[in-house]
Amino acid sequence: MANEKKLVKAITARDEDFAQWYTDVVREAELCDYSSVKGCLNYLPNGYAIWENIQKDLDARFKETGVENVSLPMLIPESLLEKEGDHIEGFAPEVAWVTHGGMERLQERLCIRPTSETLFCDLWSKMVRSHRDLPKVWNQWNSVLRWEKTTRPFLRSREFLWQEGHTIHATYEEAEQRTLTMLKVYQDFIRDSLAIPFVSGRKAENEKFAGAQDTYTVEALMHDGKALQSATSHFFGNGFPDAFNIKYIDKNNQPHSVYETSWGLSTRIIGAIIMVHGDDDGLVLPPRIAPVQTRVIPIAQHKEGVLEKADELLAALKAAGYRAKIDDSEKSPGWKFSEQEILGIPTRIEIGPKDIEKNQVVVVRRDTREKIVVSIDEITTKLGEILETIQKDMYEKAKAFLNSHIDTAVTMDEMVEKFKANRGFVKACWCGDEECEGEIKYATGGASTRCLIEDEEMISDTCIFCGKPAKHMAYWGKSY
Amino acid sequence: MANEKKLVKAITARDEDFAQWYTDVVREAELCDYSSVKGCLNYLPNGYAIWENIQKDLDARFKETGVENVSLPMLIPESLLEKEGDHIEGFAPEVAWVTHGGMERLQERLCIRPTSETLFCDLWSKMVRSHRDLPKVWNQWNSVLRWEKTTRPFLRSREFLWQEGHTIHATYEEAEQRTLTMLKVYQDFIRDSLAIPFVSGRKAENEKFAGAQDTYTVEALMHDGKALQSATSHFFGNGFPDAFNIKYIDKNNQPHSVYETSWGLSTRIIGAIIMVHGDDDGLVLPPRIAPVQTRVIPIAQHKEGVLEKADELLAALKAAGYRAKIDDSEKSPGWKFSEQEILGIPTRIEIGPKDIEKNQVVVVRRDTREKIVVSIDEITTKLGEILETIQKDMYEKAKAFLNSHIDTAVTMDEMVEKFKANRGFVKACWCGDEECEGEIKYATGGASTRCLIEDEEMISDTCIFCGKPAKHMAYWGKSY
Repeated sequence: MANEKKLVKAITARDEDFAQWYTDVVREAELCDYSSVKGCLNYLPNGYAIWENIQKDLDARFKETGVENVSLPMLIPESLLEKEGDHIEGFAPEVAWVTHGGMERLQERLCIRPTSETLFCDLWSKMVRSHRDLPKVWNQWNSVLRWEKTTRPFLRSREFLWQEGHTIHATYEEAEQRTLTMLKVYQDFIRDSLAIPFVSGRKAENEKFAGAQDTYTVEALMHDGKALQSATSHFFGNGFPDAFNIKYIDKNNQPHSVYETSWGLSTRIIGAIIMVHGDDDGLVLPPRIAPVQTRVIPIAQHKEGVLEKADELLAALKAAGYRAKIDDSEKSPGWKFSEQEILGIPTRIEIGPKDIEKNQVVVVRRDTREKIVVSIDEITTKLGEILETIQKDMYEKAKAFLNSHIDTAVTMDEMVEKFKANRGFVKACWCGDEECEGEIKYATGGASTRCLIEDEEMISDTCIFCGKPAKHMAYWGKSY
Repeated sequence: MANEKKLVKAITARDEDFAQWYTDVVREAELCDYSSVKGCLNYLPNGYAIWENIQKDLDARFKETGVENVSLPMLIPESLLEKEGDHIEGFAPEVAWVTHGGMERLQERLCIRPTSETLFCDLWSKMVRSHRDLPKVWNQWNSVLRWEKTTRPFLRSREFLWQEGHTIHATYEEAEQRTLTMLKVYQDFIRDSLAIPFVSGRKAENEKFAGAQDTYTVEALMHDGKALQSATSHFFGNGFPDAFNIKYIDKNNQPHSVYETSWGLSTRIIGAIIMVHGDDDGLVLPPRIAPVQTRVIPIAQHKEGVLEKADELLAALKAAGYRAKIDDSEKSPGWKFSEQEILGIPTRIEIGPKDIEKNQVVVVRRDTREKIVVSIDEITTKLGEILETIQKDMYEKAKAFLNSHIDTAVTMDEMVEKFKANRGFVKACWCGDEECEGEIKYATGGASTRCLIEDEEMISDTCIFCGKPAKHMAYWGKSY
């Protein structure tokens, strides 16, 4: 059992040092690590397999709403990036520049895309002539690069993997609707497939994407009480398209503006999965996106018939459509249990001589450690039920945590107190001025608006800081 | 019918001007086009959907052989690229360099990856300690950049999409075996899923990948008689790993070299699909990777019940697992037929009032134009048979073309004659000297060795050019 202890000890307790716990889980589960290129990650098989399942699930949801995938270049000429004023201002400080190609100095610098609005608009300016060319509802799965100063695995790195959807429409309303449709796709995916609860809504002015008219966000709460912006959907109006001269000829034979959206979700979301569901023993993965849903672990595997029966079980599980693996290595069962827990595999199935005698197996849930004895004859159906229960319970547990970490405040004293006493979101009203937000941020040690609350009655008429009439109610929180 | 003619006329006849025909098909089928970034492509929905199906099919074949997917950075520090001498010599002239990140000048230049051997080896040098860390059998789907002077859609562009597999092994034999396993995966995929026949084998010395000990290739024959290198699998021996100091401790407690492979297939293969199967009316896609396998086209769709029945048919086809679409736009049937042909959709299903009366539909094959009357009650099973027949017939047709374009030559006169009279491959023997190859290339107007033929008896004992003893027999051909 020495090995088992060694494995578990490698992870710092979550409540002792959350940041170190996170780093330990990422390392011990072999999800990703830093490469020799400063701030850039190697996504290793265990981490990338999670991303592949995210892609598969989310891509199918996109396509159900009519999204088509494309692939545009990774390089953007400087003159193109500069076409929309707010956009270049937002991104210029954090792009990487290519100045030489082969042996030659380039006439114009090219940046590695930090995001691709400019490339999509440039392409559409050449493609769109009539209303029959609209809408365009496109997406790409790619990587982008932003020259960040400080980096953390999944949460912030110079290069990161994501999807970026870009659309244009003949009318304002249709584009606005698309922005909200994609927000809902993200909400459904994050809740139903990742078992992560959230608050969600429109961003305040200074939290919007560079160049957007409206940004909608999904904000999940991590176990340490910090918020993580998990997906965003932007409505651009006609600002970008006009800057790129994308027009269609309408029924009156007049050039008409088009309206644009973009929306994205990145490998950051893997950080959310870790920090919402993980525990002191490692990762806990929701069954719907877990690369491996169950690992068969033979007990006393040297005894006659055990490995044979375990292999049979594995074959039956695979045939029934489960993502199943076996650990028939020479390591001790304790070591194997420990590794399955670190990796966050939702269930393990123990099968030993006594189980075989009784025609049963023992299913152990990763999330609760509950042991469930199941007849071998029923395992291929029962496992599905257990995985569904895990998925549901993980969401409920995280939802309860979120609910117990949402407070309200109507005075600054309350606000400061709440941020001291509890971790999480605080509902408070605000005049909308940036200056007040800065003061609130300072007083609370870093809280900013995560999203506006527009479908509830305001809890106060006045700004929590300056006392002037309140313009917005918002969820305030400290964020990654 | 004016529209129909207009659509078809947009494509130059294949035998009139093959290069123009190719360009026309790529444009009219809206597969990809040039972006504002010189030499870089926009992969549009119709083209990218083909790539997605290629990925899905090939990735499953990879995983069956134990491959795991990862994602490594897009940037390589100059010092890392320089670690293996042959490699840097091969790639230095064609990489793009990043010199500035954000506002700062970088201490060391970073190149955008032209291929990732150096990144994988760098990572493994930190991960591999014992034989238990081996093998690593990894792959990534990404894009790479090579600063090409001349470019053509899919065939040669600065940035292109591909997969690059990289593996390391404890023994020479295991790595050599992996090289051949992946070659076979490519052969099976290209033959069975793309319906493309080929010649295949080891590359001659000067056609090898920069740094490789052996390169194996799949060479397909395009309709114009030129060869297209469609996939390659490289065996590196321990050259690269030793340069990166990747060692494991063997049973005798001694550091031991590891052996490496890499293998890749790119969006070039879409060029092969176009140039092997396409005809004067446009693209012809093999059913197994066609994004849309059938398009339902209602005839006299304004008549009562037609659209309803067509929608029912579509729903039944989708429910049966076909990738099916409908064209119920206001365009004329002729225009719709023409578009379906340009796009290379393997079948269309015509359904009109008379068909409905007889409880039948008319399936039209894209490859042969054959019209097949099928009872509506049987369509969901019959269509599968028709698609399988198309897949098989497309391969047989291309195979017959390949076979009729393989010649042999034992003298230079014959060789020159064959390359004048026919287009395709010529089998000939050769001393192995680069100088002779250069002379042969000159005399034939551009033929080089495409791959060596090592499993057949040599047709001559002497080099076709210099008359010295022959070392190799090879397929010679002009190539893309």
